[in-house]
Amino acid sequence: MTITITAFERSPDGGRGLARDTRVRWALEEVGQPYQVRLVSFRAMKEPAHLALHPFGQIPTYEDGDLALFETGSIVLHIAERYAGLLPDDANARARAITWMFAALNTVEPPILELANAALLEADKPWHDERMPLVEDRVRDRLKQLSARLGGADWLDGAFSAADLLMVSVLLRLKSSGLLDAFPNLLAYLARGEARPAYRRAFAAQLAINAVKPTGD
Amino acid sequence: MTITITAFERSPDGGRGLARDTRVRWALEEVGQPYQVRLVSFRAMKEPAHLALHPFGQIPTYEDGDLALFETGSIVLHIAERYAGLLPDDANARARAITWMFAALNTVEPPILELANAALLEADKPWHDERMPLVEDRVRDRLKQLSARLGGADWLDGAFSAADLLMVSVLLRLKSSGLLDAFPNLLAYLARGEARPAYRRAFAAQLAINAVKPTGD
Repeated sequence: MTITITAFERSPDGGRGLARDTRVRWALEEVGQPYQVRLVSFRAMKEPAHLALHPFGQIPTYEDGDLALFETGSIVLHIAERYAGLLPDDANARARAITWMFAALNTVEPPILELANAALLEADKPWHDERMPLVEDRVRDRLKQLSARLGGADWLDGAFSAADLLMVSVLLRLKSSGLLDAFPNLLAYLARGEARPAYRRAFAAQLAINAVKPTGD
Repeated sequence: MTITITAFERSPDGGRGLARDTRVRWALEEVGQPYQVRLVSFRAMKEPAHLALHPFGQIPTYEDGDLALFETGSIVLHIAERYAGLLPDDANARARAITWMFAALNTVEPPILELANAALLEADKPWHDERMPLVEDRVRDRLKQLSARLGGADWLDGAFSAADLLMVSVLLRLKSSGLLDAFPNLLAYLARGEARPAYRRAFAAQLAINAVKPTGD
């Protein structure tokens, strides 16, 4: 049975690896599972066939035989539970890694997405300039706490796990913002994640689809 | 071994059940596990002892013998995996329920939290009145998709599961906003969740701590 995931036909980020299929590709690369990709246009994402698979009309989705899943976090968790390499064997360490997966997506990412919304969806609003620092402060609060907890460790809790995969993916959104510069240990953590061969393969695979191609002849 | 969770010494919502310990109480009530509660003041939440347990200085936390967890979603998932009653037995149905748990927390709740931030943290800002409808539209988009998927079903995917527990808890945040009124099936879904005996016991337990007490005599 071949695993099939969906990805943007053309990612809005032009191949910077921020679309969420990169997280799933990374997980599959870490556990050494081959997969195929079905590209979906923005129009097709809102049509009944895709909505049957993903009720919120987004990517990625995950299909493996009879099983169809949506939601990146649950797809990564499913891969981590099904194949070895992304979760510790010890039951308590495993539960803690899953706690950090939720922390990445539910505590660290939401203010970062709010920042992205403020920057993209509200760029033309009269309040944009005055409001941005406020939203940045909310992100900074979380980074401060995360940095304090990480300290000098390589990964969040022992060896690299699906928790680090998601936390690094979340922090990648801030790469060009400058907000990470005040936290050298988070920058180093990010670099460690990006240096993993599995991440590099995942990044290259999405780039091959999304890189802005020269137009003309 | 007794399960211990943390909760606000005094919840900012005055006992409306929106603090996240209610979600964990509800899960424990559904699976019939007794628990004790340690109340934490706002000051204590930011002190080293609590930060060791919860790096982001929030509630709830979950302790059971050697195991300490934070993040509501992962605590509910841990309870659902450890005790019977909150996840289906069939492996695929179980994975789909977990997908919906992530959907509740990662897709439906973020715009609702953004709305709460806009209403609470930015109430005194000059842009408040003009910006609110914009943020409400983002919530409405999600509700439309959720309502379309739920249709006439009682629960998200077969029998009641931890996914419904989280989705109902997320929608409860909108109860007083009027935004649900356009979606009768979501209102009925919410009512079904609130009518569950386990929810009622969880709600009563948090209310006993948080109900605004008459001052003076």
